[in-house]
Amino acid sequence: MAKTVGIIGGLGPESTVDYYRRILLECRRRTGLANNPDINIVSVDIVKALAHVSSREYDKLEAMLLSSAARLNAAGSDFAAIASNTPHVVFDGIARHSPIPFVSIVESTCSFVKRRAYERPLLTGTLFTMREGFYREAAERYGIDLIVPSQEDMLTIHDVIFPELEEGIVVPEKKARFVEMVGRYVRERGVDCVILGCTELPLMIGEGDVTVPVVNTSEIHVNAIVDRMLA
Amino acid sequence: MAKTVGIIGGLGPESTVDYYRRILLECRRRTGLANNPDINIVSVDIVKALAHVSSREYDKLEAMLLSSAARLNAAGSDFAAIASNTPHVVFDGIARHSPIPFVSIVESTCSFVKRRAYERPLLTGTLFTMREGFYREAAERYGIDLIVPSQEDMLTIHDVIFPELEEGIVVPEKKARFVEMVGRYVRERGVDCVILGCTELPLMIGEGDVTVPVVNTSEIHVNAIVDRMLA
Repeated sequence: MAKTVGIIGGLGPESTVDYYRRILLECRRRTGLANNPDINIVSVDIVKALAHVSSREYDKLEAMLLSSAARLNAAGSDFAAIASNTPHVVFDGIARHSPIPFVSIVESTCSFVKRRAYERPLLTGTLFTMREGFYREAAERYGIDLIVPSQEDMLTIHDVIFPELEEGIVVPEKKARFVEMVGRYVRERGVDCVILGCTELPLMIGEGDVTVPVVNTSEIHVNAIVDRMLA
Repeated sequence: MAKTVGIIGGLGPESTVDYYRRILLECRRRTGLANNPDINIVSVDIVKALAHVSSREYDKLEAMLLSSAARLNAAGSDFAAIASNTPHVVFDGIARHSPIPFVSIVESTCSFVKRRAYERPLLTGTLFTMREGFYREAAERYGIDLIVPSQEDMLTIHDVIFPELEEGIVVPEKKARFVEMVGRYVRERGVDCVILGCTELPLMIGEGDVTVPVVNTSEIHVNAIVDRMLA
């Protein structure tokens, strides 16, 4: 019998839908059609969460996520995950204080990059994810030489995500800008893969859109979640 | 501040995604972009639920849904809803024993049909929804002359839903068969609207596909849910 995962969702909603569908599909792929594990989702307000992030009131973000963790625990979740990269800025506090264990998208991603023997991944994501140190610190622990975009490119990437892609809408001009920028980091900085460190980016960028492999953080996170569900 | 709804989902998963998206969109439509209410979802095993339905072990179905209701209550839901028509066969038991109130898709639909002054709706849905009396009994209370398909047409409609549409896949030949059948009931039985009494049917049939208005039960249910959230 599969363990029940609890998902903190809504950050954003389209990413939550992606996780929900992927978890069910991956469970079926591994164990057969007749297995539809229980899944709990607590969907919270992305506007409130991002306001805490952009004002760097991380204690408020942490309190919001810990309250969701308590609700997921009460609903019978064996463990939990946050279906978004950005809130992982407070992951350590969540892991320490939550009543149930959490699977981190950052740890899952670094472990994947290491297994694939990529050496110089380019980090992309929201401004907060690129600016804060949580991906860099995890990469260091794994001995990965993470390339963080310049201040100017951070703003370009952030603008690729908001507001359209957050709503699931791909704007071709923004996609072209993203692809061009990645190409520049491949030529000038020798990056050998791109971490799509925002769960909405895979809605826009797939394998083949750029000249190096793409690291799909939501897909990797879902695989780690399903590993734990079926362990 | 909006009330928190708890959704019993997974029956099937695509309908759950549809409810989740619609609830968020409808809240935004009514109150503005900056409002993303908390939503709880407990997704359960459709294979197990349908097995209880087809063997008519309704006590087991009720126990399964009441356990989900308890989990939604524990997660802080103010009220709940089942994102599917078929399980409403045990709605009375759920409403009586659940710790939180439930919004019924059947009541919401009959109330809508009455407000629109439709007089002879055709009921479509899974075999179970058409065969069991729960839509007919509610319609009687509202003074609506509900037309239930013949045994043969029930099997045709059921076959339109399973297995592809349950997975979100529209098969054009099955859609054509559904449209042809509705046309026959319009000509021969004078039906003046079609109740899409399965939350996956609107993925296939929209306004204009048939010559009479379609009654989208998930849309109506979501509206009733959002009414309650914002009340």
